[in-house]
Amino acid sequence: MPSIILPALAALALPAPQADDANLRVAAQRDAALDDDYAYAITEAITTELGPRLAGTAEEARARKWAVATLTKMGFSNVHDEPFPLRTWVRGTEKAMVVGANSQPLALTALGNSGATPEAGLEGEIVFFPTLDDLKEAPDGSLAGKIAFVSHAMTRTQDGSQYGYYGAVRRQGPAIAAAKGAAAILIRSVGTDSHRMPHAGSTVFPEGTAPIPAAALAIPDAEQLERLIGRGPVRVALTLTPRILGTQTSGNVIAEVPGRDPAAGIVVVACHLDSWDLGTGAIDDAAGCGIVAAAAKRIMDAGRPRRTIRILWAGSEEVGVFGGRAYFEAHKGDNHVLAAESDFGADRIWRLDTNFAPANKPLADRLAAALAPLGISAGREAARGGADVAALISAGVAGVDLQQDGTRYFDLHHTPDDTLDKVDPAQLRQNVAAWTAMLAIVADAPEPISATK
Amino acid sequence: MPSIILPALAALALPAPQADDANLRVAAQRDAALDDDYAYAITEAITTELGPRLAGTAEEARARKWAVATLTKMGFSNVHDEPFPLRTWVRGTEKAMVVGANSQPLALTALGNSGATPEAGLEGEIVFFPTLDDLKEAPDGSLAGKIAFVSHAMTRTQDGSQYGYYGAVRRQGPAIAAAKGAAAILIRSVGTDSHRMPHAGSTVFPEGTAPIPAAALAIPDAEQLERLIGRGPVRVALTLTPRILGTQTSGNVIAEVPGRDPAAGIVVVACHLDSWDLGTGAIDDAAGCGIVAAAAKRIMDAGRPRRTIRILWAGSEEVGVFGGRAYFEAHKGDNHVLAAESDFGADRIWRLDTNFAPANKPLADRLAAALAPLGISAGREAARGGADVAALISAGVAGVDLQQDGTRYFDLHHTPDDTLDKVDPAQLRQNVAAWTAMLAIVADAPEPISATK
Repeated sequence: MPSIILPALAALALPAPQADDANLRVAAQRDAALDDDYAYAITEAITTELGPRLAGTAEEARARKWAVATLTKMGFSNVHDEPFPLRTWVRGTEKAMVVGANSQPLALTALGNSGATPEAGLEGEIVFFPTLDDLKEAPDGSLAGKIAFVSHAMTRTQDGSQYGYYGAVRRQGPAIAAAKGAAAILIRSVGTDSHRMPHAGSTVFPEGTAPIPAAALAIPDAEQLERLIGRGPVRVALTLTPRILGTQTSGNVIAEVPGRDPAAGIVVVACHLDSWDLGTGAIDDAAGCGIVAAAAKRIMDAGRPRRTIRILWAGSEEVGVFGGRAYFEAHKGDNHVLAAESDFGADRIWRLDTNFAPANKPLADRLAAALAPLGISAGREAARGGADVAALISAGVAGVDLQQDGTRYFDLHHTPDDTLDKVDPAQLRQNVAAWTAMLAIVADAPEPISATK
Repeated sequence: MPSIILPALAALALPAPQADDANLRVAAQRDAALDDDYAYAITEAITTELGPRLAGTAEEARARKWAVATLTKMGFSNVHDEPFPLRTWVRGTEKAMVVGANSQPLALTALGNSGATPEAGLEGEIVFFPTLDDLKEAPDGSLAGKIAFVSHAMTRTQDGSQYGYYGAVRRQGPAIAAAKGAAAILIRSVGTDSHRMPHAGSTVFPEGTAPIPAAALAIPDAEQLERLIGRGPVRVALTLTPRILGTQTSGNVIAEVPGRDPAAGIVVVACHLDSWDLGTGAIDDAAGCGIVAAAAKRIMDAGRPRRTIRILWAGSEEVGVFGGRAYFEAHKGDNHVLAAESDFGADRIWRLDTNFAPANKPLADRLAAALAPLGISAGREAARGGADVAALISAGVAGVDLQQDGTRYFDLHHTPDDTLDKVDPAQLRQNVAAWTAMLAIVADAPEPISATK
């Protein structure tokens, strides 16, 4: 770089006259967070000490108790557990074998809400559907006594946007197969890896549809089954014995950084504490809980913000966003001015989306300017929030989405492989820095904050 | 490149007067093999139609039957199964739980020859040893009623050479722990991945040492256990119910390309057909069987070679090289002039090693020249063969090692993840090209071939 331009750069570095001090304070807090250890320590403790935390189980209850103790020790105010009842599904035995000349085991896992086979299993011929649309077109009754197999394949994207489209196989496929008389359904896992790790996740049987056994094959096993089908008819023996434990207790854990000005409203930052039962829920979503708590603590430690920051570590997200619903029902009357959630792993944030009203363009611009040095650009999508705050945002609360890089998220999502070793501490710190900057700005913004209509 | 050097390059490209035709023929066969489909087709069929092929089981027997049919159909001569008896170990239930305040499951698999726990399991305190040497130093009797845990960690290398050193944890650790009175032993998997895929593999209890339950933890689970141990004493409940099926039948499958000159001896090319039971044995070692058969077929299809090429698809390699031993005992009187084995995955060959006598330097030079265009250089180690031909080479037979890139081999080795999707067809073809060139040269070499003394 020619030294002649150095004076010009120095001039550019001079702070703008008005926003000067606030901007420098935000930048200093942001940059200090790049050395944050809290988020990793929380992620490590949740995954190590608590392990899997399936909604409605004793393990989730243990996690809530730990969460109340930990958030209290960190210095937050008003830390408490808000319990709610949950119809609780738990996994049983799960086993599948191709039978006949090519007999061999297949790796799979039951989908949440799956029905059970008899204890001794069931056996049926596989009927193959390359896509969910193909399954939809199967004639009524054509699957009687058979096992449907849908092998819709998603691929990696940075924004994870294929999950909506391909995830329909898991959400809707089992109910469609049940309506057509299938004895059971197998789907290719909704994931992007090539490991023998089935991806769990909930399915939905509407009122009046009796649940059938429904499971996700690991991706190599789905491909194996496709190759076998290419050679001729295939029969599979399937044993899945999940059961409903009845109504158990789940709950949301809440903690606050009280604001100076009660009339200025509440900024809620969320994650979910429950996890699927196969892994230890590191990227989904211990890391998110670490990120939001670490960022809120940085704001708290820097002095009281104008607005209250409320941390929501939700329960029962994985099994149907029951924590988010319970929070919304209990708190929709609270004066929420902004909601955000970290629930897309632990990899770096690359894009900022908001749903701000036009009057809040200066606020959006301040956020963009503060995040740009972290490699984050302003996006063009309207913020919708993570699942646990989506109801608030749908109801008109302003939202900020700090979009994480999801390129490898669906390699790990809902698998046994969602463990601490997958968390990159450097990327995790970048998340904390971005959340810290965002909170520093929105919690202290002098102007009102509102969503676009 | 300045055009002035082109005439010099053209001069270099002129074939040497003597070896001319033979060299061109070898190069043509080698380059044609870069389009080979046979190796992949064999690998695909073994992994898809046969699946896991544990030594001594009905699945290995089915594989041998398939192998005889397939090698016959490919046009080889003298295709047959050479059965031998095998004391057969099979896996049972396997389950481990940390008990107490941090209760959670751990992913593991029993080591081959592991003893069994009671059906209801056993529970013991973990005694942690960072390395095998630390276990060796534990006082006699100090492990009574306890579960030893050794967490020796190997890392990736291109030549896989860490397997010898770190593999000792698996081979020797259980017997050492048993001798010190341990109730059971857990080891960190001998592997280089970070997935919840335990690595199976055999251990050895010497005559007079009663087998104890012995299992390998997936690497993330070994790290989890280390973190928990860092917080205080840990107890684990362990259930492993493997059993000995008694003496069953294993066997070696043999096929030949008959040579023109019976006095010129036999070139044996080997792989093993058995696999561990968790995966479908794609890289270990269906690919090796595909490579040697595809290369031998190319030589056969090009016209009768001077020397007989014998294909050995060995049985029971994984559980103690029983196929290699049976072959050696049955055939040590045969006129073997050279032995080679493909049993290190499906990734590209990067180095050539031989154990040739000094008089065979011209032959080694011809091999190096033919392999160089494939990115293979001559190494400085003495060829030792794969496990199934090691006895022949130790007994004085010349050997060629076509060293495969093992960088990712121990990510997959002996895990459920050793499946077809891990095989890169382009790298597999490079293997076939190298083996084709090697066989074309050694099977037709006019000179005698002998090993260094």
